[in-house]
Amino acid sequence: MSDRYLNFVNSGVGGWVAGALGLPRPAPLQRRAEAGAGIVGPCLLGGSGDGPMAAVLAGLMEASGHGLHAEWSPDARYGALVFDASDCARVQAAKGLYGFFHQAVRSVAEHGRIVVIGTPPELMADAEGEAVQRGLEGVVRSLAKEVRRNIGVHMLYVAPGAEAAAESTLAFLLSPRSAYVSGQSIRVAAPVETGEPGAGHTGRKVLVTGASRGIGEAITCLFASEGAQVTALDVAATADGLCALSEELGVDSLALDITASDAAATLLADARKRGGYDVVIHNAGITRDRTVARMEPAEWDSVMAVNLSAPLAITQTLIEGGGMRRNGRIVAVSSLSGVAGNMGQTNYALSKAAWIGAVRRLASQSASSGLTVNAVAPGFIETRMTAAIPFAIREAGRRMNSMGQGGSPVDVAETIAWLAHPASGGVNGQVVRVCGQSLLGA
Amino acid sequence: MSDRYLNFVNSGVGGWVAGALGLPRPAPLQRRAEAGAGIVGPCLLGGSGDGPMAAVLAGLMEASGHGLHAEWSPDARYGALVFDASDCARVQAAKGLYGFFHQAVRSVAEHGRIVVIGTPPELMADAEGEAVQRGLEGVVRSLAKEVRRNIGVHMLYVAPGAEAAAESTLAFLLSPRSAYVSGQSIRVAAPVETGEPGAGHTGRKVLVTGASRGIGEAITCLFASEGAQVTALDVAATADGLCALSEELGVDSLALDITASDAAATLLADARKRGGYDVVIHNAGITRDRTVARMEPAEWDSVMAVNLSAPLAITQTLIEGGGMRRNGRIVAVSSLSGVAGNMGQTNYALSKAAWIGAVRRLASQSASSGLTVNAVAPGFIETRMTAAIPFAIREAGRRMNSMGQGGSPVDVAETIAWLAHPASGGVNGQVVRVCGQSLLGA
Repeated sequence: MSDRYLNFVNSGVGGWVAGALGLPRPAPLQRRAEAGAGIVGPCLLGGSGDGPMAAVLAGLMEASGHGLHAEWSPDARYGALVFDASDCARVQAAKGLYGFFHQAVRSVAEHGRIVVIGTPPELMADAEGEAVQRGLEGVVRSLAKEVRRNIGVHMLYVAPGAEAAAESTLAFLLSPRSAYVSGQSIRVAAPVETGEPGAGHTGRKVLVTGASRGIGEAITCLFASEGAQVTALDVAATADGLCALSEELGVDSLALDITASDAAATLLADARKRGGYDVVIHNAGITRDRTVARMEPAEWDSVMAVNLSAPLAITQTLIEGGGMRRNGRIVAVSSLSGVAGNMGQTNYALSKAAWIGAVRRLASQSASSGLTVNAVAPGFIETRMTAAIPFAIREAGRRMNSMGQGGSPVDVAETIAWLAHPASGGVNGQVVRVCGQSLLGA
Repeated sequence: MSDRYLNFVNSGVGGWVAGALGLPRPAPLQRRAEAGAGIVGPCLLGGSGDGPMAAVLAGLMEASGHGLHAEWSPDARYGALVFDASDCARVQAAKGLYGFFHQAVRSVAEHGRIVVIGTPPELMADAEGEAVQRGLEGVVRSLAKEVRRNIGVHMLYVAPGAEAAAESTLAFLLSPRSAYVSGQSIRVAAPVETGEPGAGHTGRKVLVTGASRGIGEAITCLFASEGAQVTALDVAATADGLCALSEELGVDSLALDITASDAAATLLADARKRGGYDVVIHNAGITRDRTVARMEPAEWDSVMAVNLSAPLAITQTLIEGGGMRRNGRIVAVSSLSGVAGNMGQTNYALSKAAWIGAVRRLASQSASSGLTVNAVAPGFIETRMTAAIPFAIREAGRRMNSMGQGGSPVDVAETIAWLAHPASGGVNGQVVRVCGQSLLGA
C-alpha cells in the first residue's frame, strides 16, 4: 500500500540514483499529519482587493496567524496566491490575471496553493462575461499542470452574496487537508441552511458505509477524531476489522449488508434512535471488472446492488422517513471511472457515473430540507484494492497526475469532511475529484 | 503531417516487425473518402424496439440499403449496434443494456459504431431515473475504451418529442464521417427552427475564418464540395494559399485580419451583400505557448485577440446587425486544452475554455432567432502545427486515445458540417470533442 518508488527516490541513495538516471522525483505530499489543518502560509492577494471575498480571506488569514499581502515582494515566499477575478467581465480585464501570475507564480512555496475566485459564468450579464469567467477554468487547469511541486490550483466560483458561505471551502483549499485535490472547479451558492454552523463535526451523528477498511476506515477515523459520533457500517464478513476499529476509536459499529431488503428500514430505525443522522457517507462499493463480453450477470448485478440501488434506496428512505436532520449532509463516493469510463468497468462506471446524476437531482430536491448532497470522485488512491493492480498499470495510474503520486485514503476523507462540514451548506450537487489532477477525464 | 508510424506498422515488413515486437498496430480510420458518407453497415437494434427513435433509425437504415435487425444472429457482422435505453428509469432496467452488449459486442465489425439512446437525465421523473440515465454515459465511455478496432461509441440523449430532429445526428454518428469522434455524449432537443431543412449545405452562405490551411482548409473544401457558397477568410499574409484555394474550389476569398477594428463591420457588410450568412465557422486561432512566468504580454494579448475577442465581437455584430439568416449556425473551434488545460497554455486554454461558456450563453440567447451555436474541441489533429511538436510528446498525443492515432483536419470539418447542417437545429449549446476519445480531460 505504500508508494515504494516515492520512498526510494526521496531517500539518500535513491535520490542519488534517481538524479543520475533522470527519474521524476515527486516530493511526498504534506497533509494534516505533517503540516496541520490550517492555512499553508502567508497569502498574496491579487485582483479585486476590496471585494467581499477579500474580507472573507482576510478573516481566515488573521485567524491563521499568517500574513495577507496585497503587494508582491520579490524576496517573499508565499504559501498561497489568491486572485479575485469575480468582477472580470471583459477579455481585456483578464489581463490582470496574467500580470499577477506572471509576476508571482514563482514565489509560491512547494506544497502551496493557488486559488482563482470567480463569479458563476451563467450569472454574468452577457456572453463575453460568461465566456471570460468560464475561460478562467482553462487558466487554472493549465496552471495546475504547470506549477507542479505539490501545489494545488483551483477555481472557486462564488455566487454574489454567498461569500460568507465560501469560507469553509476557501479554508479547505488553502490548507494541507486538500493535499491531493487539484485542478478542480468548485461552486458556492447561498447555503441550504442559514443557521449558525456551530462547532464543526463535534457531536454530529455520522453514518459511514464500508467503514472497516481503506477509504471508509480513513473517513471513520477522521470524523471520530473531530468529535463526531460515528456509526461505522460494514458487512458481517468484516466484523473483525469493524470491531477493532470500533474499540480503537470508540465508534458504534453496525454489521449490515446494505443490499439486504430491510437495510433501509434498519438504518431509518437507527437514525431515529439517534435523533436523525447529520451526515451519511455512501462509501461502500465493490468492483467486478471484466469486459462486457465476458462479464457474468451476477457481476453486473452485484455492482449495481452495492454501488447504486442500495445507497439510493437508503437515501430515499432516510430523507422521506425523517432520518436526516436539518443542515444535514449526504456524500457519495463516485470515481474517475464514472467520469471518464474505464476498460472492463461498464458495470462500475455506470454505478459511479449514476451518482453524478443522482447528486444533481437529490441536491435540488433536498435543499429545502436543509440538506446538501455531493460526491467525491477519487482517482488513484493507495489501498489494498489498488495494490492488487499489475505493476505497469499501477505505476501509470500513480504517475499520470500533477502530483506524480497516488493519493491516500485520508485525502478522500478530508475532502468528504469539508463537504460534510456544517459550514459547507453553500456547496451542493457537486462532484469533486480527489486525484492530484489526474490527466484522465472526459 | 502523415502518420509514418501508422503507415509503417500497417505495411508488409512493418506489420511483421510490429507483430514480432508487440507494438500496437492501429488500423487507419475509414473516412468518407474510403467508405462513403452513409451508414457504415447493417444495424442491430436493442432496447425499446418500438419507440419513436426506432422509427427514425428504421428510416435511416431503409434509405441506406443496409438491413435493420431486431434479433442477434451469432454469425452476423453488424456495422452498428444501437440500444434504445430512453425508457430506462430503474437500475434493474439497465440490465437489458448489459444483456444486449454482452451478447452482441463481439459482432460489431471493425470501423463500426455503437450508439446508446437515452433521455436527458434531468427530464426523468425521479432521482433513480436521473441516476440511471446519467450512468449510461459511464457505460458508453467504458465500452469505447474496451471495443477499440476504430469503433466509435456514443451516448445520444434525445428529448421526448425531438426524435425527428435527432436524425441528422444519428446519421452522422453511424457514418464514416464521425471516424475520429468517440466517447461523446450528445443531446438533441426541439429544433430552433421548425421549417423544412431542405437540401443540405447546397447554396448555404458559409463564412470560414482561418481558411487557408490546416483545419480551416479542410472545412472550406468540405463545404464547397457539398455545394455551399463559401467565403474563405484569412489574413493577408496567407494570400497565396487563399488564392490557390479560391481558384481550386471556386470559393470567394477574403483577406482580412479579424482583429482589425473594422473587421466586424466589414463582415457585416459582406453578409448583407449575400443576404446574410447561414453558417459562420470561427476556426482562426493561434498559439503562443509559454509558461505564465515566461510569457510576454504580447503573447497573452494576441491569443486573446484572435481566439476570443475578435470572434466574439464578430458574432455579436452579425447577430445584432441582421447578418445571420434564420436556421443559421455558428460553430467555434475550441480545444481539448480548453477542456483540460495544458502546460504552457494559460492564454490558449483561457481562450478555448471561454468558448465553452460562450456557446452556452449564445445558444440560449439566439435560439429564438433560429440560430444554433456550438463548438468542436479537437484533440490531436495532424497538421503543420502538430508536426512541429517534439517527437516523444507528439507520439504520446497521437496514441493516448481509443483510436491509437491522431485525427485528420477532415475529421474536424465533418463534425462541423454535421453541426452546421440545416437539419441539426436540435443540437445547440454543445461542445463535441473530436479526439478519438483522448484519455485527457477534466
